[in-house]
Amino acid sequence: MTQKFAHESFTVMNELVLPNDTNTLNNLMGGRLLHWMDIAAAISAQKHCNRIVVTASVDNVSFKHPVKLGDVISIEAKVTRAFNTSVEVRLVVWAQNIPSGTKIRSNEAFYTFVAIDQNGRTITVPQLVPETDDEKKLYNEALQRRELRLILAGKLKPKDAKELQQLFKEVVKD
Amino acid sequence: MTQKFAHESFTVMNELVLPNDTNTLNNLMGGRLLHWMDIAAAISAQKHCNRIVVTASVDNVSFKHPVKLGDVISIEAKVTRAFNTSVEVRLVVWAQNIPSGTKIRSNEAFYTFVAIDQNGRTITVPQLVPETDDEKKLYNEALQRRELRLILAGKLKPKDAKELQQLFKEVVKD
Amino acid sequence: MTQKFAHESFTVMNELVLPNDTNTLNNLMGGRLLHWMDIAAAISAQKHCNRIVVTASVDNVSFKHPVKLGDVISIEAKVTRAFNTSVEVRLVVWAQNIPSGTKIRSNEAFYTFVAIDQNGRTITVPQLVPETDDEKKLYNEALQRRELRLILAGKLKPKDAKELQQLFKEVVKD
Amino acid sequence: MTQKFAHESFTVMNELVLPNDTNTLNNLMGGRLLHWMDIAAAISAQKHCNRIVVTASVDNVSFKHPVKLGDVISIEAKVTRAFNTSVEVRLVVWAQNIPSGTKIRSNEAFYTFVAIDQNGRTITVPQLVPETDDEKKLYNEALQRRELRLILAGKLKPKDAKELQQLFKEVVKD
Amino acid sequence: MTQKFAHESFTVMNELVLPNDTNTLNNLMGGRLLHWMDIAAAISAQKHCNRIVVTASVDNVSFKHPVKLGDVISIEAKVTRAFNTSVEVRLVVWAQNIPSGTKIRSNEAFYTFVAIDQNGRTITVPQLVPETDDEKKLYNEALQRRELRLILAGKLKPKDAKELQQLFKEVVKD
Amino acid sequence: MTQKFAHESFTVMNELVLPNDTNTLNNLMGGRLLHWMDIAAAISAQKHCNRIVVTASVDNVSFKHPVKLGDVISIEAKVTRAFNTSVEVRLVVWAQNIPSGTKIRSNEAFYTFVAIDQNGRTITVPQLVPETDDEKKLYNEALQRRELRLILAGKLKPKDAKELQQLFKEVVKD
Repeated sequence: MTQKFAHESFTVMNELVLPNDTNTLNNLMGGRLLHWMDIAAAISAQKHCNRIVVTASVDNVSFKHPVKLGDVISIEAKVTRAFNTSVEVRLVVWAQNIPSGTKIRSNEAFYTFVAIDQNGRTITVPQLVPETDDEKKLYNEALQRRELRLILAGKLKPKDAKELQQLFKEVVKD
Repeated sequence: MTQKFAHESFTVMNELVLPNDTNTLNNLMGGRLLHWMDIAAAISAQKHCNRIVVTASVDNVSFKHPVKLGDVISIEAKVTRAFNTSVEVRLVVWAQNIPSGTKIRSNEAFYTFVAIDQNGRTITVPQLVPETDDEKKLYNEALQRRELRLILAGKLKPKDAKELQQLFKEVVKD
Repeated sequence: MTQKFAHESFTVMNELVLPNDTNTLNNLMGGRLLHWMDIAAAISAQKHCNRIVVTASVDNVSFKHPVKLGDVISIEAKVTRAFNTSVEVRLVVWAQNIPSGTKIRSNEAFYTFVAIDQNGRTITVPQLVPETDDEKKLYNEALQRRELRLILAGKLKPKDAKELQQLFKEVVKD
Repeated sequence: MTQKFAHESFTVMNELVLPNDTNTLNNLMGGRLLHWMDIAAAISAQKHCNRIVVTASVDNVSFKHPVKLGDVISIEAKVTRAFNTSVEVRLVVWAQNIPSGTKIRSNEAFYTFVAIDQNGRTITVPQLVPETDDEKKLYNEALQRRELRLILAGKLKPKDAKELQQLFKEVVKD
Repeated sequence: MTQKFAHESFTVMNELVLPNDTNTLNNLMGGRLLHWMDIAAAISAQKHCNRIVVTASVDNVSFKHPVKLGDVISIEAKVTRAFNTSVEVRLVVWAQNIPSGTKIRSNEAFYTFVAIDQNGRTITVPQLVPETDDEKKLYNEALQRRELRLILAGKLKPKDAKELQQLFKEVVKD
Repeated sequence: MTQKFAHESFTVMNELVLPNDTNTLNNLMGGRLLHWMDIAAAISAQKHCNRIVVTASVDNVSFKHPVKLGDVISIEAKVTRAFNTSVEVRLVVWAQNIPSGTKIRSNEAFYTFVAIDQNGRTITVPQLVPETDDEKKLYNEALQRRELRLILAGKLKPKDAKELQQLFKEVVKD
C-alpha cells in the first residue's frame, strides 16, 4: 500500500486519573500524561504504518490547567503527515470532570515516530493523504514543525531551514 | 531567601529498565522516559523553590538511541534559571548497559515548573545564580528558549520575541 | 435532566498490551481485561449519570481468543438502559494486531453501576432513550438480563421473574 | 494422574487495598477485585491441572458492599469440577477491616479455566473427586452453571440444556 | 483484650510472579519479594493487634534459590511474640512451579511492627500466648533475636544483652 | 580487570513517595523502601562487577522515622568489599521534605549480591580497593558482618566464626 487517509489513523484513548497519577495536591502529574499521550500516539502511528513504531520525538508541550484526581482524560490522536520512514502525530487532550459537567481542552502536542521492521531497521511508510481543511492545514505546516524539530535536535542548521526562514523573514519584517 | 546557586538543585535519579517499561522489541518506551524525567525535574525544581511545583511545559525532546531492557537510566537535573514564579530545569539522560560497559548520552531536555502554595496559587521563587561557565551559558540562553516556548504555546507573538528576533536576523543574513 | 440518549454515553478506550498484562505464554490475562472493561464502563456510566458510580455487577464474560503482547485492546462502552438508581452498560471488546492487520471481536459483556452522591447514598439517574434499532433491542432485552442477574445474586426468586419465565415457557415448549 | 481431590486445589490470597485500587470515594474498584480473583482462581486451577491455564469465563459477579482503602481482601479459591480440558473454580471473597474488627462476605464467583500445553493447545485434565457435602453439592450444580454459561456464550441452544430445562420446568410449574 | 493465641494471626498470601517482578534473567527480584513479605507480615501483625501497624525492622533475609517468572510465591506469616507496643512476625516463603510440580522453601524471615493509633502514637498490644511446641520455641528465642536487633540498630550495648551473652558464653567455651 | 575502587560503584537514586507507596496514614511502607533499596544496591553492585547480579541477602534494617507522602527518598549505595563471587553494598537512605526543608537520615543497610553469567552460574568478581578512612573501616568490618550473615543463614557454626568470636570475647569480658 502506498498511501492512506488521515482519518484511518484516528485513535481515542480514555484514562481515569487514579491516586498514583497525582501529586500531593491531587493534580495529575505532567509526566504521567506525557506517558499516556505517547501510547495513544504510538497506536495511531501503528495504524498508519502497519508496523512497529518507536518514538522519535515529542514537540513542546505546555500544561495550562490542573487536572484533578477522578477526572477522565480523553486523548485524540491522528497522523498529520508521513515522511520517508516516519510520521507526525497530533494529539488533542481533553480533561473532563463528568459529575460536575466540565470539559476543558487541556493540551495539544505533536509526537513523531519511526517505523521499524523486526530487526529494528527503519522501513518506508505509506504516504498520508489529507482530506478535510484541517487535515490539509496540519499537513502543510508539518514541514515547518519538522525543520524546527531538526534544528532543536542539532540535525539541521537554521540557514538550511527553508520553510522556517520564510516564516522568519515575515517576522523580521514586522 | 532571595537567591540560590544552580548546584543546590542538582539531582540524580537512576532507574532500571524493567519489562513493563519496554515495547515488544524490548526497547524502553519514550513515554516512560518522559515520565521519569518529569519526576527527576520536579525534585530538582522543588530543591530550588522549597515549594510544591507543577509541570508547566516540556520542550522538544528527541529520542536518538534505543534503550534496552535491563539498562540503567541515569537522569541528571539542575535548575538553569528562575523567572518570577517559575523555573527552567535542564535534564541530561544517560543510558548504561553495565555488564557490557556501554554508556551513551541518550537525551537532553528542558522542563519548566511553576511553584505554588497549599491553595494552588503561584508564588515567587528565589532567583538563580549561575557560577560555572556552563551554568552561565544555560542561564543566558534560557531567555530564547522561553520566548520560543511562549510562541509555541500561543502566549507570545513572534514580533514581540526580542531574543529570538536577534537570532532570526543573524539566520536571515546568512 | 430527566432523560438522555444512549449515544451520549458512548466511550472508547484503547490500551496497549504490555508485559505485565500477560501470562507466561505472552497472552493477556483475563483479569486485566476485566479491570480495563470496568474502567471503560464506569466512564460511560458516569457520562449518563453525571455522578460518581460504583460497580454493582458484571454479567457472564467469556474469553474465546488469546490476545497477545503488543496487541491493541479497543473497548467500546454504551449505556443500554437506566433503572431507578442504576444503569446497565454494554461493552464490546476488539483485539487488534496492527502490524499484521488482524482485528477480532474478542468479548462482549454487560456491567451495571449504581450512582451515588458524595455521602455514598444511591441517587436517581436520568432515564435512557434508545434511538437506533440496536439500542432499542438492547434496551428491551435489558429486563431479562436484569432478572437473571437478580436471580443469580439471590435477590429474586425464579417464580417472580416474569420476563425470564416467558422465555422459559418457550424453551420448555420446544 | 487421573483424578484429584477438591481440597488439593484450595488457595488463599490476601491483598491490602492500596490507594491505586480505589476510586475517588476511597472504595475498592470492582475491576481491580475481578483482576485479583482471576489470579487467585488461576493458581487454584493450576494446582488441579498441573498445567498452564487460561481464563475461559467468569460468571455473573455482584458487588454488594463497599470495600474501603486499608481493608484486607481475602480470596478463597477451590476447584469444584473438572470437565474434559477445563475446570470450574469457586471463589469466596472476604473483606476485613482489621483495626475495627469487621469481616464481611463480600463476593462469590465462578471462573472457568482451560488447561493448555506449551504450544497453546488444550489438554486433558484430571477428574475432580468431591469429598465433603459442600464439595458434592457444588460438583453437582456445576452442570447447570455450565449449561447457562454455554447458552450465554452462544455455544448451546436453550432447548439442548437438559440440566437447566429440568430447573425451568419446576420454575414454570410454580 | 489482653492476650491472643499465635494461630489467630496466621496469614497466607499467594502471588504470581509476573514480568515486572523479574530481572533480565527472568528471576524474581529480591526487593519485590521483600515488599510482598512486608505486606503479608503487616496483615498478620494487624490481626494480632487490631490496630494500624508500621514496619519497625526486618531481620537478615537470605535468598538461596532463584524463583522464576510464572512461579507462585506462597508466604505464611504468624506472630511469634508480642512486646509492649510491638510484635515480631515470622515469615516462611515457598516458591512453587505448579506445572512442573516443584515446591521449595525459599526464605524465612522475621519482621517487627509497632502498633499505632490514629494520631500515630504507639499503643499497647495484647500479649501472645504460644500453644504448640514450635510456637513456644519461636516465642522463647524471640528475646535473643530482639537483643541482636537492638544491638544492630545501635539501641543496646552488647554488654547489656543478657540473652545473647548466655549464647556467647557457650560459643566461646566451645 | 582484577580490582576496582569503592567510589567507582557509587550510585544515587531519588524517588518521590507517591500514594501507592503509602499506608492509610500516608506513611511510606517499609516494603516499598526495601524494594527501592534493592534496585539501588543492584545497580551499584553491577557497576563493580560489570555483570548481572542477583540479591543474595539483606542484613537487618530498622525503620526509625515515618516518611510521608510527597517526601523525596534519596538512596546512596557503594560497594564496601568484594568476596570471591559476591559483593557487599552499603546503603544510606535520606528522607527529605523539600517544601518544609527537613532532611533526615532514615535508614542504613547492607545488601549482598552474587555475580552470575548468562547461564546463571556464579562468576569471580574484581577485588575492591578502599581508599578513604570510611571505606577502609567498612571494608574491615565486612568480615564480621559476613560471619553473622552466614551464621543467621545456617551456613556457618558460631564456633567457626573467628572474627565474631574475637568480638564475643571482648563482650563476655566486660
